[in-house]
Amino acid sequence: MRLDRLIQVLLPHDEKFYSLFEEMTTLLMRGADLLKELPARLGSGGADLVREFEDLEHQADSVTHRIYAELNATFVTPFDREDIHELASALDDIMDFMNGVAERFLLYKVSECPPPTVTLIDILHSGVEELKQGIPMLRDFHDNDALKKVLERINTYENEADDVFDQAVADLFENERDPVKIIKLKEIYVSLETATDKCEDAANVLETILIKHA
Amino acid sequence: MRLDRLIQVLLPHDEKFYSLFEEMTTLLMRGADLLKELPARLGSGGADLVREFEDLEHQADSVTHRIYAELNATFVTPFDREDIHELASALDDIMDFMNGVAERFLLYKVSECPPPTVTLIDILHSGVEELKQGIPMLRDFHDNDALKKVLERINTYENEADDVFDQAVADLFENERDPVKIIKLKEIYVSLETATDKCEDAANVLETILIKHA
Amino acid sequence: MRLDRLIQVLLPHDEKFYSLFEEMTTLLMRGADLLKELPARLGSGGADLVREFEDLEHQADSVTHRIYAELNATFVTPFDREDIHELASALDDIMDFMNGVAERFLLYKVSECPPPTVTLIDILHSGVEELKQGIPMLRDFHDNDALKKVLERINTYENEADDVFDQAVADLFENERDPVKIIKLKEIYVSLETATDKCEDAANVLETILIKHA
Repeated sequence: MRLDRLIQVLLPHDEKFYSLFEEMTTLLMRGADLLKELPARLGSGGADLVREFEDLEHQADSVTHRIYAELNATFVTPFDREDIHELASALDDIMDFMNGVAERFLLYKVSECPPPTVTLIDILHSGVEELKQGIPMLRDFHDNDALKKVLERINTYENEADDVFDQAVADLFENERDPVKIIKLKEIYVSLETATDKCEDAANVLETILIKHA
Repeated sequence: MRLDRLIQVLLPHDEKFYSLFEEMTTLLMRGADLLKELPARLGSGGADLVREFEDLEHQADSVTHRIYAELNATFVTPFDREDIHELASALDDIMDFMNGVAERFLLYKVSECPPPTVTLIDILHSGVEELKQGIPMLRDFHDNDALKKVLERINTYENEADDVFDQAVADLFENERDPVKIIKLKEIYVSLETATDKCEDAANVLETILIKHA
Repeated sequence: MRLDRLIQVLLPHDEKFYSLFEEMTTLLMRGADLLKELPARLGSGGADLVREFEDLEHQADSVTHRIYAELNATFVTPFDREDIHELASALDDIMDFMNGVAERFLLYKVSECPPPTVTLIDILHSGVEELKQGIPMLRDFHDNDALKKVLERINTYENEADDVFDQAVADLFENERDPVKIIKLKEIYVSLETATDKCEDAANVLETILIKHA
C-alpha cells in the first residue's frame, strides 16, 4: 500500500463524503422510479413528470457541488481527490441523461413509450439500484467482495442495455417508415443507453478506488 | 497542502506554460470571432472562411504540441502534468469543433444559417471570452474568487446552450419536413453544442487545478 | 525524474503487463484482418463473420480483465496504475467498435459495403498495425524515438479517417435519396471513425506514459 493510501486509512475519514454520495444515490433512485412512471403518465401527466425531474436534477446538482466544495475544504480525503471528483461527475451525468429522456418525450411530442424504452428503463433502474447498494460499501473496504459483485452486475446490465438498444434500432429501421420518427426514437434510445453507460462509468471509478486500495 | 503542491508553489514557475495557454485562447477567440462572421459570409465567402479556419486550426495544433513538448522538457511544472495535458487537449477540442461547424456548412451545402445557429454561436463566443479572461488568472492564485466566477459563468453558458439546442432540435422535428435537412442541421447544432461542452471541460480542468491548490 | 518513477525503473518490471498488452494487440490485429474480409463476406458469410467477431471480443474482454486483476495483485507496476487502466480500456474500446461495425451491417441488413467503408477499414487496419508495433516498445524506453514516430503515424491515420468520414457523409447527403439508408450508413461510418479515434486515445495514453518517463 502506498504511503498516501496508508495515511488515508489511518486518519479519521470524512463522514461527509460518504453521506453526500449516499444522498446522491437516493436522488438517482427517485429519478429511476420516476422514469418507470413515464409510460403511464405520458398521456396526461407528462409535463408534471418533467417538472418533477427538473426539480430532482437541481437537487442532484446541488449535492454534486457540495461534494466539490467539501473537496476544497478537506485536507485528507477518504479517497483520491480526483476519484471523488470523477465519481461525483458520473453520478451527476446519470441524472442528466435520465432527465434528458423525460424531456425528449415532451419536447419531441412522442406520446407513447415503445416497448424497448420500457425494457431500457427497467435495466437502468436495476443499475441505479446496484449503485445505491454499492456506494455505502465504500465505508468499509472489508466488504471488498460484495462491492466487486455489485460492479459485475452493473457491467452485466450495461451489456444487456447494449443488446436491447441494438435490436431496438434495428427494428426501428425495419418497421418504422417515418424517418423523422426513426430519428426521434433513436435519440431517446441513445439517451437511455447512455444513462446506463454512465452507471458503468461510476462503477469503473469504484473499481479504480478498489484497485488503489488493494 | 500536499508536499508536491508545495514544491510547485515554491519553485520558480515556468512562464512558458502560461504564455502558451494564453496564445491558445487568443487563437480560440479569433476562431469564435470568425464563426460570428459565418452567417454573413455563407452566401459568397464561405469557402474563404473555411480556409481561414483550417489555418487557425493548424496554428492551434502547433501550440498544443508545443505545450506537450514543454511538458517533456520541464522538470517542475506549475500544475500537475496530467492537468496541463488535459487542459491543452480540451482547448484544442474547442477549436476542432468550431472548425467542424464551419466545414459542415460547406460540405453539406447548407447555404443559410438558421436562427438557433446564430444564438449558439453567440453563446459559444461568450464562453470562449470567459476562457480568455480566466486562463491568465492561473498565474496568480490569489485571484481565486475571480476565477471561480469565470468558471460559474462558463457553466451557465453551457446550460443555456443546452436549452437552445434542445428547443432547436424540437423545432426542427416540428417544422422541417425534409428528413435529410433535419439530419444535416441537427449535426451542425450538435457540433456547436459540443464546442460549448468542451469549454465546460476546460473549465472543469481549471476547477480541478483550483481544488488541488486549495 | 520523480522518485516513484525511479522506483518503477529500478525494480524488476512485471513482465505480465507487457505480455497481456501484446496479447491484446494480437487480438486487435485479428479483428482488423477480419473487418477487411467483411466486404467479400457480406453476401454469404456475414453471420459467420459476426460470430467470429463476438468470439474475438470475448477473448479481448478476458485479457482486459486479466490486466485489471494483475493491477490488483501487483505492488509495483511498470507504469502508473491509472495509465495501465486507461490503456487497457482504450484497446478494449477499439475491439468493441470494430465488432459494432460488423454487427451493424447484419443488424441493419446492409448487404453491400460502400467504398468509403472500405477506405475507413483500411485506415483503421493501418492504425491497429501501428499499435501492434508500438506497444512492445514500452518494454524498452531507449527506443523512445521509434515509439514517438509510431504515435505520430497513428495521429496521421486518425486525421485521414476524419477527412474520409467527412467526405463520405457529405456524399451520402448529396447522392442518397433514402433517408433511412442515410441514417444507417452514417451510423456505420461513425463506428469506423470512432474505432480510429480509440486508436488515437490509446496513442495518447502511450504519449502520457512517455511524458511521465521523460
